[in-house]
Amino acid sequence: MTPAYPALGPQTLEQLRYVSTATVSTQLFKLGLRNMFMPGLRPLAPTLRMVGEARTLRYAPAREDLATFEAISRPDYPQRAAIEGIRRGQVLVVDCRGVESAAAAGEIYMSRLKILGAAGCVIDGSIRDFPAVQKLGLPVYARSPAAPPHPAAHLAVDMDVPIGCAEVLVMPGDIIVGDGEGVVCIPRHLADQVAQNGLEMEELETFVLEKIQAGARVPGTYPPDEATKLEYEAWRKARR
Amino acid sequence: MTPAYPALGPQTLEQLRYVSTATVSTQLFKLGLRNMFMPGLRPLAPTLRMVGEARTLRYAPAREDLATFEAISRPDYPQRAAIEGIRRGQVLVVDCRGVESAAAAGEIYMSRLKILGAAGCVIDGSIRDFPAVQKLGLPVYARSPAAPPHPAAHLAVDMDVPIGCAEVLVMPGDIIVGDGEGVVCIPRHLADQVAQNGLEMEELETFVLEKIQAGARVPGTYPPDEATKLEYEAWRKARR
Amino acid sequence: MTPAYPALGPQTLEQLRYVSTATVSTQLFKLGLRNMFMPGLRPLAPTLRMVGEARTLRYAPAREDLATFEAISRPDYPQRAAIEGIRRGQVLVVDCRGVESAAAAGEIYMSRLKILGAAGCVIDGSIRDFPAVQKLGLPVYARSPAAPPHPAAHLAVDMDVPIGCAEVLVMPGDIIVGDGEGVVCIPRHLADQVAQNGLEMEELETFVLEKIQAGARVPGTYPPDEATKLEYEAWRKARR
Amino acid sequence: MTPAYPALGPQTLEQLRYVSTATVSTQLFKLGLRNMFMPGLRPLAPTLRMVGEARTLRYAPAREDLATFEAISRPDYPQRAAIEGIRRGQVLVVDCRGVESAAAAGEIYMSRLKILGAAGCVIDGSIRDFPAVQKLGLPVYARSPAAPPHPAAHLAVDMDVPIGCAEVLVMPGDIIVGDGEGVVCIPRHLADQVAQNGLEMEELETFVLEKIQAGARVPGTYPPDEATKLEYEAWRKARR
Amino acid sequence: MTPAYPALGPQTLEQLRYVSTATVSTQLFKLGLRNMFMPGLRPLAPTLRMVGEARTLRYAPAREDLATFEAISRPDYPQRAAIEGIRRGQVLVVDCRGVESAAAAGEIYMSRLKILGAAGCVIDGSIRDFPAVQKLGLPVYARSPAAPPHPAAHLAVDMDVPIGCAEVLVMPGDIIVGDGEGVVCIPRHLADQVAQNGLEMEELETFVLEKIQAGARVPGTYPPDEATKLEYEAWRKARR
Amino acid sequence: MTPAYPALGPQTLEQLRYVSTATVSTQLFKLGLRNMFMPGLRPLAPTLRMVGEARTLRYAPAREDLATFEAISRPDYPQRAAIEGIRRGQVLVVDCRGVESAAAAGEIYMSRLKILGAAGCVIDGSIRDFPAVQKLGLPVYARSPAAPPHPAAHLAVDMDVPIGCAEVLVMPGDIIVGDGEGVVCIPRHLADQVAQNGLEMEELETFVLEKIQAGARVPGTYPPDEATKLEYEAWRKARR
Repeated sequence: MTPAYPALGPQTLEQLRYVSTATVSTQLFKLGLRNMFMPGLRPLAPTLRMVGEARTLRYAPAREDLATFEAISRPDYPQRAAIEGIRRGQVLVVDCRGVESAAAAGEIYMSRLKILGAAGCVIDGSIRDFPAVQKLGLPVYARSPAAPPHPAAHLAVDMDVPIGCAEVLVMPGDIIVGDGEGVVCIPRHLADQVAQNGLEMEELETFVLEKIQAGARVPGTYPPDEATKLEYEAWRKARR
Repeated sequence: MTPAYPALGPQTLEQLRYVSTATVSTQLFKLGLRNMFMPGLRPLAPTLRMVGEARTLRYAPAREDLATFEAISRPDYPQRAAIEGIRRGQVLVVDCRGVESAAAAGEIYMSRLKILGAAGCVIDGSIRDFPAVQKLGLPVYARSPAAPPHPAAHLAVDMDVPIGCAEVLVMPGDIIVGDGEGVVCIPRHLADQVAQNGLEMEELETFVLEKIQAGARVPGTYPPDEATKLEYEAWRKARR
Repeated sequence: MTPAYPALGPQTLEQLRYVSTATVSTQLFKLGLRNMFMPGLRPLAPTLRMVGEARTLRYAPAREDLATFEAISRPDYPQRAAIEGIRRGQVLVVDCRGVESAAAAGEIYMSRLKILGAAGCVIDGSIRDFPAVQKLGLPVYARSPAAPPHPAAHLAVDMDVPIGCAEVLVMPGDIIVGDGEGVVCIPRHLADQVAQNGLEMEELETFVLEKIQAGARVPGTYPPDEATKLEYEAWRKARR
Repeated sequence: MTPAYPALGPQTLEQLRYVSTATVSTQLFKLGLRNMFMPGLRPLAPTLRMVGEARTLRYAPAREDLATFEAISRPDYPQRAAIEGIRRGQVLVVDCRGVESAAAAGEIYMSRLKILGAAGCVIDGSIRDFPAVQKLGLPVYARSPAAPPHPAAHLAVDMDVPIGCAEVLVMPGDIIVGDGEGVVCIPRHLADQVAQNGLEMEELETFVLEKIQAGARVPGTYPPDEATKLEYEAWRKARR
Repeated sequence: MTPAYPALGPQTLEQLRYVSTATVSTQLFKLGLRNMFMPGLRPLAPTLRMVGEARTLRYAPAREDLATFEAISRPDYPQRAAIEGIRRGQVLVVDCRGVESAAAAGEIYMSRLKILGAAGCVIDGSIRDFPAVQKLGLPVYARSPAAPPHPAAHLAVDMDVPIGCAEVLVMPGDIIVGDGEGVVCIPRHLADQVAQNGLEMEELETFVLEKIQAGARVPGTYPPDEATKLEYEAWRKARR
Repeated sequence: MTPAYPALGPQTLEQLRYVSTATVSTQLFKLGLRNMFMPGLRPLAPTLRMVGEARTLRYAPAREDLATFEAISRPDYPQRAAIEGIRRGQVLVVDCRGVESAAAAGEIYMSRLKILGAAGCVIDGSIRDFPAVQKLGLPVYARSPAAPPHPAAHLAVDMDVPIGCAEVLVMPGDIIVGDGEGVVCIPRHLADQVAQNGLEMEELETFVLEKIQAGARVPGTYPPDEATKLEYEAWRKARR
């Protein structure tokens, strides 16, 4: 059974599709959250964007007596339960403790996620079948390629619990946003606000960038002073 | 309520008091377990030995909206629940993801553990009030001193679950052994065997060391060839 | 000429002599400052305490054409200018970028600091003549011993400027506090408040620790509930 | 003179051209070898595959009195002896201790390897002329680009000896396999078995992937249960 | 006001456009400078080349009381002063202490640099709006993408001072050269010599590479013996 | 059979007993050698001094098929051959690649070295039976304690070859000097010169330190100007 999360604003997820991780990070910084971006995770498909609710999977270190191929083949093994439990639009976030010596998963499991309609997968570790997963059409973020199977370094122990991912706390139900830059986590209770303000900031930055490209000086333009703000309001209205 | 673990041999814990972490590690290596020692954790009281069943506490990364002093003061907060739930002879093992920028706990909580009869505490991170804890008489292992309170880096999220500690998997109920060298985890189902064989190996190494100190060459002595083994058997009988 | 800093409360420095770096860190955390402790720096003399105003020295990486023994012998070389410019009660804080392959300074310069009445020296790097400096009676904090002279890795380029030390921003005039745990930096404008509140917290923690050692449970005692607070007030009065 | 290695099965090298490093790693894991993949080494030409016998070259750290341009120009200098000694189909594996501050070699030496028919080159360090080597048509794996010449960090001291490469033991004559994911080393005595079993596993995974892409659930499909195995056998026969 | 630097030879900057960072590094090594390449910095636009005089910007670690959006919006804030102060042909080099958890700057500031005619930007840290900056047509070098705004990790404190960048000392006015391999710093007083000798070495290596590609053995060819040198002189003359 | 090395000056080794690693490092720096100190290695017995000729032992990474207890028990296994081959006054230097997850050796082998008259042992990795080895009376330097036996991470593959130790090149026959600060390697051909000049520098620094402790200012005193040099000559004569 999959968890139900408190409701989001009806447009929040859709709005976040138009907000970059840079803008999301600025909005979170303004709300007092400084470490929600996941450094070191790179997009396997940098042109795709990702927005979705977090489901979590926790790996602990492998141990030779427990991380056996027999053990990981059981149907209730958390790795496969987490994969099969994904619902349309969700993002599977995997805590691998930053360990890159073995993969968290590979092409077969990523293909299953795609078929199930997952919004993406975020791995604080490595992925195997890297070149194939790059072409899969699913937004996947990981540290690096690694060929060894996961029980060489990992044992799945839990799902749908709070985890760390690249030293960012991810609670099940948080909103995960990814683009060509990387991944950021938005605490669920802040998602409506971040989406709304982020969309406005994107528009302002479009205006600012146009001015800069036309030769405007940074002071006065970014951040905008009163004159620039008025100019922006006019530009904005004209645009609609 | 605290968990009940499958029974150990009646002498196992007592025997392990006489087996070094070096010998335990060799025994585990012979059983195919290569990574049960926790590198980087140092004893605050190097002359104390520690043997006990593992209880576990899991920290995830802190987040400004959740890791507040109000939140961590709630009675059911896993950190305080884990401390208060310790039973005589148990070792509290804390997963701090190796993060050293804030402490997992300090003198007050370590004192409470001692009063409760804990066998020790193992922290994959830092401890505060370091000089005071060094003198407490409780075996504590950690990476380093760190003054900041735990919500500067950590949020306690779980207890009595499998955790990683210095990239070693620790299952609740595993047997934790510590000495002046560091800490090693023995999977519970192997503890009887490791204790028995470890004790024998300690005796053999005492004999070998005497011979080496008397000028014996390494080849033939360590590991012992047939002649040395016979000599050892004689020495062993004479000793009893 | 040495800088003059805005005035502190008349008792602030004296009060801070009785406040641990753990308590200072908690007070700063409550004021919204999460990263003022300097992880990785260890006391060469763990029993000494240190309180003083920061003077700063900035090293950049060495370069074979500039970091020569000739260049570093000039009287205006920032390293020696910073050493000679120290006034009684000040702490010299040295930005070595965390580099440990060569020393920032050694026994001769530390001896000069002591003669000049420096309160201590904090080095985000290494120190040479380590065993001698340990016995000098000056609070010195560094990452590790390193025998090579500083131009093997460093070139002093600036003094009395903002620096990073163990990824903590130190402004000249900030208050630096050290004990057996390590070093914490207090922004000058917060020092009075931290000293006052810190002293009160030390007293409360003394009371709490007594209770814990007498067998009190953590919940209700730490942090104190209303009953414990009343008890504390009584204890406090009785003590005076 | 180049070494002669014990014979391989006649099809082993050819078979391994169709086995991914992920599959090789799984086969080695099943044989009890957990650390044969080289984390951190990336392909300069990700679309090329590499299979060949290992020849080894060992670098030690540079020292100003020995790592001079004069010394490294001598014909018997191990770096150039190793390059010139390569035979068709071999892979040169270079132990750079993971050091990335200078290159192990550059375009000229990689071009020579290509002319000599080398199967590839694996460097536990950096390469210079990175953009040119990317286009060379030779499978090269390294940690990163680095412009400085090798004596800035390395001194070649030995060839055709056991080395570590990305913390993997490589014995001369081992079989090195590379693809877009990275590099794995197969102990020579296991190569026939890994090639045979690996090829079969590739076929099974092709079948499994087709099923997953057609919507099959993970449990029962991967790893395959009895029903899936029967289905696979039918699919396999039909395919031939 | 921008600094004036001692004059370079009239052709130096132009010549350096044809000299790779590999060749520059070799020339510097021959002059006794071993660490002028900046390991870990990668080109966002690997096909562009960069040559220019260094201007510097120094970031210190952020602190919650100082690194506020208000503070960084002041016109004299060193970050914006450094951006606006750039003159045609200069390279802005930014000391971020290697920290990758927040960006040094993003698309807007990089666009302003481009409009101002900057030769490029070198960041010992991260950049945001990474995908957009990759397409900007400005040579930019950084460690990684990072979405968070700079005050999440940095506070700009100084400009036009000596800095460390990837543990390389950069003095204002030094010559910075970049290509698809990375970035190297040439001390200004050596730039004429490095440009002249570098250009000659490029020509020699072109000749050597042709010979190697035609099947020449490494010994005698590279480095060239007397016969090869004569042959080279003939080739060189014929070419003109 | 043990190697014979070119002769040293008759007093060199004796003189070096009175020269600190700090002074040795300065002398080597003056001769153009910047990286001969081994950062990260700490003395197990900080009050002992060590001077002796280097013998070397090289470990490569362990592999499950080769690093077995059977294999390492063979009399010609390089680890035991290196231990037994030590001659009076030599220092065994062990290349462990900086790996700390298993020990290079323990009390039994260190005891054998002591009985054989070794001057000491330097390990670029870990040691087991750490507390016992601390009390052995043999100068031993290592990174940390680690309980696991060496085949958990290492396979001895060579002895009496050039090795890297803490990224310092050690040639067999080099002179290894250790004190409470750490370990430095002197290229054999420079040892006479370093010993002679080092002894003189020690005397000068004793004089300088006395002056500094008596209140002398750094400029003029250290490094000494002409007046101080004259004073020193007088002091020196008076002392004899």
